[in-house]
Amino acid sequence: MSSTYGEKIKISIFGESHGGGIGVVIDGLPAGEAVDMDAVLAQMARRAPGRDKTATPRRESDLPRVLSGLLGDTLTGAPLCAVIDNTNTRSQDYGNLLAKPRPGHSDYTAYVKYRGANDIRGGGHFSGRLTAPLVFAGAICRQLLEKQGIRIAAHIYSVGGVQDVPFDPVSIDNALTERLSRSPFALIDESREDAMRAEIEAARLAQDSVGGVIECAVTGLPAGVGAPMFDGMEGAIAKAVFGVPAVKGVEFGSGFALAHLRGSQANDPFRFENGRVVTVTNHCGGILGGITDGMPLLFRAAVKPTPSIAQPQQTVDLQTGENATLEIHGRHDPCIVPRAVPVIEAAAAVAVINCL
Amino acid sequence: MSSTYGEKIKISIFGESHGGGIGVVIDGLPAGEAVDMDAVLAQMARRAPGRDKTATPRRESDLPRVLSGLLGDTLTGAPLCAVIDNTNTRSQDYGNLLAKPRPGHSDYTAYVKYRGANDIRGGGHFSGRLTAPLVFAGAICRQLLEKQGIRIAAHIYSVGGVQDVPFDPVSIDNALTERLSRSPFALIDESREDAMRAEIEAARLAQDSVGGVIECAVTGLPAGVGAPMFDGMEGAIAKAVFGVPAVKGVEFGSGFALAHLRGSQANDPFRFENGRVVTVTNHCGGILGGITDGMPLLFRAAVKPTPSIAQPQQTVDLQTGENATLEIHGRHDPCIVPRAVPVIEAAAAVAVINCL
Amino acid sequence: MSSTYGEKIKISIFGESHGGGIGVVIDGLPAGEAVDMDAVLAQMARRAPGRDKTATPRRESDLPRVLSGLLGDTLTGAPLCAVIDNTNTRSQDYGNLLAKPRPGHSDYTAYVKYRGANDIRGGGHFSGRLTAPLVFAGAICRQLLEKQGIRIAAHIYSVGGVQDVPFDPVSIDNALTERLSRSPFALIDESREDAMRAEIEAARLAQDSVGGVIECAVTGLPAGVGAPMFDGMEGAIAKAVFGVPAVKGVEFGSGFALAHLRGSQANDPFRFENGRVVTVTNHCGGILGGITDGMPLLFRAAVKPTPSIAQPQQTVDLQTGENATLEIHGRHDPCIVPRAVPVIEAAAAVAVINCL
Amino acid sequence: MSSTYGEKIKISIFGESHGGGIGVVIDGLPAGEAVDMDAVLAQMARRAPGRDKTATPRRESDLPRVLSGLLGDTLTGAPLCAVIDNTNTRSQDYGNLLAKPRPGHSDYTAYVKYRGANDIRGGGHFSGRLTAPLVFAGAICRQLLEKQGIRIAAHIYSVGGVQDVPFDPVSIDNALTERLSRSPFALIDESREDAMRAEIEAARLAQDSVGGVIECAVTGLPAGVGAPMFDGMEGAIAKAVFGVPAVKGVEFGSGFALAHLRGSQANDPFRFENGRVVTVTNHCGGILGGITDGMPLLFRAAVKPTPSIAQPQQTVDLQTGENATLEIHGRHDPCIVPRAVPVIEAAAAVAVINCL
Repeated sequence: MSSTYGEKIKISIFGESHGGGIGVVIDGLPAGEAVDMDAVLAQMARRAPGRDKTATPRRESDLPRVLSGLLGDTLTGAPLCAVIDNTNTRSQDYGNLLAKPRPGHSDYTAYVKYRGANDIRGGGHFSGRLTAPLVFAGAICRQLLEKQGIRIAAHIYSVGGVQDVPFDPVSIDNALTERLSRSPFALIDESREDAMRAEIEAARLAQDSVGGVIECAVTGLPAGVGAPMFDGMEGAIAKAVFGVPAVKGVEFGSGFALAHLRGSQANDPFRFENGRVVTVTNHCGGILGGITDGMPLLFRAAVKPTPSIAQPQQTVDLQTGENATLEIHGRHDPCIVPRAVPVIEAAAAVAVINCL
Repeated sequence: MSSTYGEKIKISIFGESHGGGIGVVIDGLPAGEAVDMDAVLAQMARRAPGRDKTATPRRESDLPRVLSGLLGDTLTGAPLCAVIDNTNTRSQDYGNLLAKPRPGHSDYTAYVKYRGANDIRGGGHFSGRLTAPLVFAGAICRQLLEKQGIRIAAHIYSVGGVQDVPFDPVSIDNALTERLSRSPFALIDESREDAMRAEIEAARLAQDSVGGVIECAVTGLPAGVGAPMFDGMEGAIAKAVFGVPAVKGVEFGSGFALAHLRGSQANDPFRFENGRVVTVTNHCGGILGGITDGMPLLFRAAVKPTPSIAQPQQTVDLQTGENATLEIHGRHDPCIVPRAVPVIEAAAAVAVINCL
Repeated sequence: MSSTYGEKIKISIFGESHGGGIGVVIDGLPAGEAVDMDAVLAQMARRAPGRDKTATPRRESDLPRVLSGLLGDTLTGAPLCAVIDNTNTRSQDYGNLLAKPRPGHSDYTAYVKYRGANDIRGGGHFSGRLTAPLVFAGAICRQLLEKQGIRIAAHIYSVGGVQDVPFDPVSIDNALTERLSRSPFALIDESREDAMRAEIEAARLAQDSVGGVIECAVTGLPAGVGAPMFDGMEGAIAKAVFGVPAVKGVEFGSGFALAHLRGSQANDPFRFENGRVVTVTNHCGGILGGITDGMPLLFRAAVKPTPSIAQPQQTVDLQTGENATLEIHGRHDPCIVPRAVPVIEAAAAVAVINCL
Repeated sequence: MSSTYGEKIKISIFGESHGGGIGVVIDGLPAGEAVDMDAVLAQMARRAPGRDKTATPRRESDLPRVLSGLLGDTLTGAPLCAVIDNTNTRSQDYGNLLAKPRPGHSDYTAYVKYRGANDIRGGGHFSGRLTAPLVFAGAICRQLLEKQGIRIAAHIYSVGGVQDVPFDPVSIDNALTERLSRSPFALIDESREDAMRAEIEAARLAQDSVGGVIECAVTGLPAGVGAPMFDGMEGAIAKAVFGVPAVKGVEFGSGFALAHLRGSQANDPFRFENGRVVTVTNHCGGILGGITDGMPLLFRAAVKPTPSIAQPQQTVDLQTGENATLEIHGRHDPCIVPRAVPVIEAAAAVAVINCL
């Protein structure tokens, strides 16, 4: 039972939202490879809160200190530990949570599992803040992947009822992945931004929140990566992506839509193109039998609405044993989907590098 | 890279469709517990082909021989190995597959990964037949779970455009789980069977196939099972369920529908009921922060249409390097969804028992 | 808790001495590599009992049936399962063991751990017979290692008070490893065989048994294999070798003798030899910091005397709760050291291939 | 390949001797248990250098900062991360090591494995300093074990030719384990201290170093802990103990001496004592078939002499490709055995808690 992932490149995430610090140990990184720390910080900045009004104004200094594994900008091969100190925490905002678990949060389930001993301040180990070290780890992994021509990019597929255009499943160029993987509000069709922001603002004004879907592409993967059954690409990616708080669904290629198709529609015909085997369509999301086929690997993750909303909510008082009403104070993102985009990319990077 | 699952109760599946036999080693089973082998065989019969016209008429004698780990009907604590011999195989039906990979199958990706050395007869290790040992393992695990009051049942949520009624997410009684987990064509509303069979028959007559969705419930789980992040219930179950061939999507609770909801709708209010904490709704599928909340654990798996269809399909000839047309002979299920129901239950059982 | 080993090439051993069969699943073998099954059987024959009077006359037909993972003589990449059927078992010889645990055996500890449900016939899962599938797995692994120039050979370093000459720690040629790894009574100085057999025969005549030490060399390993701390070569090999019943000590290089040396004696000086870095001595056994240095990897395993002896022994009667005397009938090896040589080699092969 | 250990309570050690800091993440600790941090620091003090003239005068401020997993003095259940900052490092002492690998050190093997990118200052990740976080982790684990009545204590069995008296293998009382597990120079017969210190001082005056053996006892373990084959107690402990730098041999019970015994001597007779099954002798070290028998678990670890000695040594110059002479400056322990005692105890604690 743990916050670790991977056999080849193991990541072990630690920390609690209002403790001394959070961070990650990454074990198995290849010695001698250079790391572009500016690019790592750029990824972390995409996740960091407080950048615009879709996000919480609480400010975190998410600057990681690397304690080991890096000499200058070169990986030493030893486990890399990065620590992000916790600052600017306002514990009093959360003072009533011990008694009244927040609906949609892990407060109650953690209370049961940890027999009341878990650090509840700010969500403790369950805080979305714990995705910062994941983004750090993913940013290093994606740099290693890029050296092999493998790129990872995601976009906001939808927020509430507003949709972006999907990836072209058989053709995703580097210009697009490059642009998306640097964007703070990643959209394929950037003209949809206003409509999405309006959807988020409407939720905020209603003291509410809104969910969405993130679509992620991994390009440049050769055919033959993965394994049958339990070590298939789908399972490896799903295990990492479900490790991101608020994700409640993962689908590959056409995913749930495949259930409505006939085999003659769903099967992706093979053909030779410039001497290389490709598929004409890509309903399978680049994965057959758990193994990549050389086409873009595509998946979508469903992100539930932020559970912290300002509206009064029905809950229980674990101290009194009575039903109760809860009002959550403090400021919270009405929509975490934009900030979750780099987190999903990071999860994908960590998963894919462990399958190579 | 492997066909193994689990840390506490490890299962290791082996075999190829037309090899000497297939089977499973299950390590970590508790000594002294009794196994009802008739109930195991009943589960395997639900998955076995040839029971009705929705399934392939090819007959398998799926009778497992237990080589170890069981003395009389009692688990000895040693690794349990069960072998199912392969019989009645008609390899000539597959004679052209080496050259021309079947669209939607693992033929091409396995060819690349295994450098052409994999056993292609009948799909080899990628055959749906390999789900038989998974059902065997799951049948034992579910018996152990039932002793703790934990029950697993799934139903055909949809086939093509025809839907069953979903589980009541907050109230699933044992009578229903009992009935479903024995049914060869598991439906909550049994009156839908004719419409579903008609959908399947229509696909068959069109030399085509059709996909569907399976919904699965785990009841009786106490609150507090699971872990945050990568060892959450979602990831554990997804890794097992994506190990089942043809599954391309997994969602928990309201899943992808959560993306369209507001937080005020998606958050499940807590309340006391007979001194026990329950939720009024169950959009989270019984899991918060990766940990069970004591409500029914609910998930759905998207199953793509059987890729083996009789229609001519476009593919490549790996020997000649030319584009080619493929006609698949032999008989194949036009819809594997009904037979996949016990497989999904088995995957869930194996996953859940490893989380306890 | 399990009978599995390895991350890259996982082996999972199953079976009980008097059950339906014993065997092994090997997952992660490289597709396309040829296996010389005659060479595998030759290794198994070295371990098999009944070859000469130092061994038990009980005959086993240790012929493995390969159910999967091999097509013709080529690895398919799917998990390889091999089964050895159990025959010629005389359960009545062991009829009293339930009540009276044999000193030096696992009877009592298994009884406690498995709450009396374990199969005690012939030692069940703890039987030395379970080393047959380990030798099978090791024989395949060593063939793969040999293709990379890595050879494994062991010899009887001592039986009771009779010693063989040790390996020359800095120079072990292929002619020696070749000869040893085929020998049924492996000695570097073959003139010691008579004295060793006399030591064993003396124990047999005294209704007793005798232990010994096995020394094993792995040659051809490049420098740089292994890892620091818990994944060092020493730990990886020790975990595999302590998996062999009766092994109670493992030491590398000069091992325990290093405790008596000064650093100036124990440090192995480096020097260039034909442009390659070598060490002048090899007290470290070819491992520094858990990582190979390119010299022969050397270790020794202490094997305790066979606990099954014909002399009356003091034990307890678990049924009556009284102290008791036990007489073990049936025939047992007075010394398992010669037959354990290929088992230690197999354990080393399985360990080393997982470190590459 | 990594610096991690354990499945139930996973420890992941990071850091390099002269980097930003070293530390450990411990995942899987039980929520709600109290930790006595003073007792943890007391264990770390036993390992810390500079306490007396047998140890290096280099001073480390080994004070760990706990970043997560602990609220007040109570475990929260989240991964616990402790960091020890690096201070007082004098990198210039090690300026020549890149060119000339130190005999007996990991310099050369790490250079090959990490392609020259590893941090060589002070031994980098291979430094003995990395045992400080292991002692920290072990100190927490042993507190949890003590709550179950399980105690761990080790002593200096020998240094060079000077021996302590061994543990009484069938009777070790809590007064002894208590005294030893607090001692900075742990001896059963404290009158041997002068002779041992003289042995160490003689080595120091000769610009040399000296090795030794540490004997460790785990008392209070119930019968039935462990597993057969590769998850036996011997393998679990050996993997942890061989993770300690300089350990080159591990033996259980009578260990290598068993090779010289007859079965009638080596078998430990069972008898009832106050209604409990005990053994009259304990040659097996409390382990039969990989499983504890309820007697003291006993093992010894061989520690090679410190490789850093002041005498000139023969080595190679990797830059010039010539043979060379090396003189190591700086101050180094002439004998690390006394300081290694708490490290071995820590390794045992981490191993044992993962077997329960």
